[in-house]
Amino acid sequence: MFEGAELGHKVSKQAFETGLPELRTRLVLAQQALRNSHVPVIIIIAGVDGAGKGGLVNRLTEWMDPRGLQVHAYWDESDEERERPRSWRFWRTLPYRGSIGMLFGAWYNEPLALCLSEQASESAVESAMKLINDFECMLCEDKALILKFWFHLSKEDQKSRLKSLAKDPRSHWRMAPEAQKAYKHYDRFVRIAERVIRETDTEFAPWHLVEAADHRFRDLTVGRILVQAIESHLAVEKSLPVIPFSCTQPPKNSTARETLLDRVDLQRILAKKEYKEQLVSYQEQINKLAWMAYKSKRAIIFVFEGWDASGKGGAIRRMTQAIDARLYRVIPVSAPTDEERAHHYLWRFWRHIPRAGKIAVFDRSWYGRVLVERVESFASENEWQRAYFQINEFEEQLVQHGIVLCKFWLHISPDEQLKRFRAREKIPYKQYKITEEDWRNRDRWDDYESAVNEMVTRTSTEFSKWTLVSANDKRNARIEVLKTVCKRLETVLS
Amino acid sequence: MFEGAELGHKVSKQAFETGLPELRTRLVLAQQALRNSHVPVIIIIAGVDGAGKGGLVNRLTEWMDPRGLQVHAYWDESDEERERPRSWRFWRTLPYRGSIGMLFGAWYNEPLALCLSEQASESAVESAMKLINDFECMLCEDKALILKFWFHLSKEDQKSRLKSLAKDPRSHWRMAPEAQKAYKHYDRFVRIAERVIRETDTEFAPWHLVEAADHRFRDLTVGRILVQAIESHLAVEKSLPVIPFSCTQPPKNSTARETLLDRVDLQRILAKKEYKEQLVSYQEQINKLAWMAYKSKRAIIFVFEGWDASGKGGAIRRMTQAIDARLYRVIPVSAPTDEERAHHYLWRFWRHIPRAGKIAVFDRSWYGRVLVERVESFASENEWQRAYFQINEFEEQLVQHGIVLCKFWLHISPDEQLKRFRAREKIPYKQYKITEEDWRNRDRWDDYESAVNEMVTRTSTEFSKWTLVSANDKRNARIEVLKTVCKRLETVLS
Repeated sequence: MFEGAELGHKVSKQAFETGLPELRTRLVLAQQALRNSHVPVIIIIAGVDGAGKGGLVNRLTEWMDPRGLQVHAYWDESDEERERPRSWRFWRTLPYRGSIGMLFGAWYNEPLALCLSEQASESAVESAMKLINDFECMLCEDKALILKFWFHLSKEDQKSRLKSLAKDPRSHWRMAPEAQKAYKHYDRFVRIAERVIRETDTEFAPWHLVEAADHRFRDLTVGRILVQAIESHLAVEKSLPVIPFSCTQPPKNSTARETLLDRVDLQRILAKKEYKEQLVSYQEQINKLAWMAYKSKRAIIFVFEGWDASGKGGAIRRMTQAIDARLYRVIPVSAPTDEERAHHYLWRFWRHIPRAGKIAVFDRSWYGRVLVERVESFASENEWQRAYFQINEFEEQLVQHGIVLCKFWLHISPDEQLKRFRAREKIPYKQYKITEEDWRNRDRWDDYESAVNEMVTRTSTEFSKWTLVSANDKRNARIEVLKTVCKRLETVLS
Repeated sequence: MFEGAELGHKVSKQAFETGLPELRTRLVLAQQALRNSHVPVIIIIAGVDGAGKGGLVNRLTEWMDPRGLQVHAYWDESDEERERPRSWRFWRTLPYRGSIGMLFGAWYNEPLALCLSEQASESAVESAMKLINDFECMLCEDKALILKFWFHLSKEDQKSRLKSLAKDPRSHWRMAPEAQKAYKHYDRFVRIAERVIRETDTEFAPWHLVEAADHRFRDLTVGRILVQAIESHLAVEKSLPVIPFSCTQPPKNSTARETLLDRVDLQRILAKKEYKEQLVSYQEQINKLAWMAYKSKRAIIFVFEGWDASGKGGAIRRMTQAIDARLYRVIPVSAPTDEERAHHYLWRFWRHIPRAGKIAVFDRSWYGRVLVERVESFASENEWQRAYFQINEFEEQLVQHGIVLCKFWLHISPDEQLKRFRAREKIPYKQYKITEEDWRNRDRWDDYESAVNEMVTRTSTEFSKWTLVSANDKRNARIEVLKTVCKRLETVLS
């Protein structure tokens, strides 16, 4: 694979300086056009040791407008990062729309290290690759332009390069004597790199192999690929071909008349006395379980979705009442801020993933994408269709990291909703809860109902199931929630 | 001081429930009004162990609209926090305008621990208190409403409370046997608390002592103080009395004709040959020094200010060229995002304070407050006048934490600027750098000049001096910058 990057390409100083002004002009103009677009540009810089990745990044930084240009290296993982799923550190450094992020190694450092470790199982390697492809696919579907550069040196070139770097007083290689010996593992490293590149070289996020022996050739080549890619990406941005939805097809809506929601028995009620007894008992358990989770460093995420006025807030409060206020955080989800809008829609939820031992309670969540955004056409059909897959992947990452995830849909009948809307209008400190929008949503009950059914069907996975709560009776709903939470935490923590 | 909080106040269950609806209605309405204001509300929850601080916060959370309500506890410092100045963790959790943040202990945990440690020197304690008062003063000047609650229990009450908590299966006190003995240090703790409260009980951020023996009295009292405070703060928000600027008065503008800027010798030039030689030599040093700083975990912050077209970008690039791209980040400062606008103006800079061993290069900075915001009247006179003091405090915190701070003003003459504007218009990849705004700013040269002079005078402190760079000759400017950086880093790191 790498033969094409060992051709001995060179650019003379003169040719370099002649070509530069035009390239810089195009780069700056491309950046300007980019700034007015919805496209984030992700540049991944990888390759063999000694290929001058740092030098290349410095060069690009010099050529371009520093506004909207960010560089990230991922060498020292912080404890805040270690306590979250692996991709959290990438999410927090993704460039915003209209800007360019140059990422050293990014999500490729890990599969490379994994392959090098020898102990990694074949399936671990494969799932790492799949995760990367899915992640990049998701970003591209969200208009991102991903450019992956692999810088190559022949074995001989690497050896001599590392030797001279080791002597250069301006080089950090002097500080890392073991890295100076990287050429000893050259063959193995290149073989592994070849595999990683091959398996992650996709149509939407292709790799570019760049011969790095001559730094002027290297820098000019990257500059030209970059400017060309931005120009053509922007030219077609609005008419971007819809990426065919290649992920495993989900089950189609069942043709049976009865839906999952229909099966929720809305008649269940709970008498006041029983309610009070059970409330106290479950709250005691939850308090203990929350402290146990804290001690065993398990984070917990609760997702509450449900009809307007289905009692989400009340159910959440009955639960959080029992938990030490220092342990949990309630995240009410409403309109995104402009920083949130400038990223993939999942970004704003990744922000709130709790640290080890802490609890996040989402009052509405990422499911807005396949509920309100779908029904109100804030998201295109392609966007919300893809969201099922993206959400499942997202939740799988949370669960695989050891986070306990509980999802509730609070179900009520249209009649019950009407009764509650009217009641809310009468209680002064509840009036704020009922708005014009609630009445509008109510008119679209059927649309929401099929969206909910599809959501529950397509995002009830083996690692993350929905709990449909019978919520016509508030007492019943609250106890069902508390009971489920207790059961779940007991299973997980024992 | 605490006698008034040992009066045995009680509220019966019936009285509590009768008073509640009105209180809740007022709270929710106050929150609504708050949402449309520029006021962030900071509630600090502190007091003796066992007073039920967690319970109180849960109660307030129940009563209010969870939107725009955040709770923060500060028990486990992360390494990302440890690597920055102490107040970084508070800055990142400050509530945004229109919202309420309930902070457990917040910046009071530390002075309390300091006093309890016995080893703390008197001056350390005093400077901790002063820092708090200055910090709170600054937030209040920025419209914040700060409410500080101290929950008190008599010695006897605490003892019995801790005992029963230790038995309560719902209490985390069971997990912390040593905390159950807190009453053994009661007298000492209360004496120390009294001092901390007394010295931080200011007109703009007063303490409220609350008797905590009866939880209904405690919760109602806090609820009422809170709603009352928000209501009256909002009522006068627009006509808020300007807090007299009480901090040490800075030197008035000197009456002498000659200013600091005048003293910059703009005639200095550097021949091409000398420039090239020195460039290479300084860049080698800087590369080494940057790695040394990394190894010794010292963060570095560079601030570049200067006239439009004074060559900031070029000087920055000559420096960053020499530094490994993984070590530094350039932060070009332009218009704030809406999340940034929703906080104190320094918040957006605190965000970018680098971790240990890393470098941040600010291309324009917090000095915008006393330059463009002053001249263009984006900030009121009171705001920019206060900013000198706030900036000095901010920088002092950075330096005290061990961060190396270098500030440059690149000085050119109006004629030189005109020449450069015209030249920029002719080079295609530089045209983007020159805008209508630059021409407008140029018309106000004199206003900017006095703003710069005042800035340099008032923010050249013993811990953070300005370097005025003679920049009519670009080569001279770049070498002056590099030389200063080398000298500075050598002094600090050797």
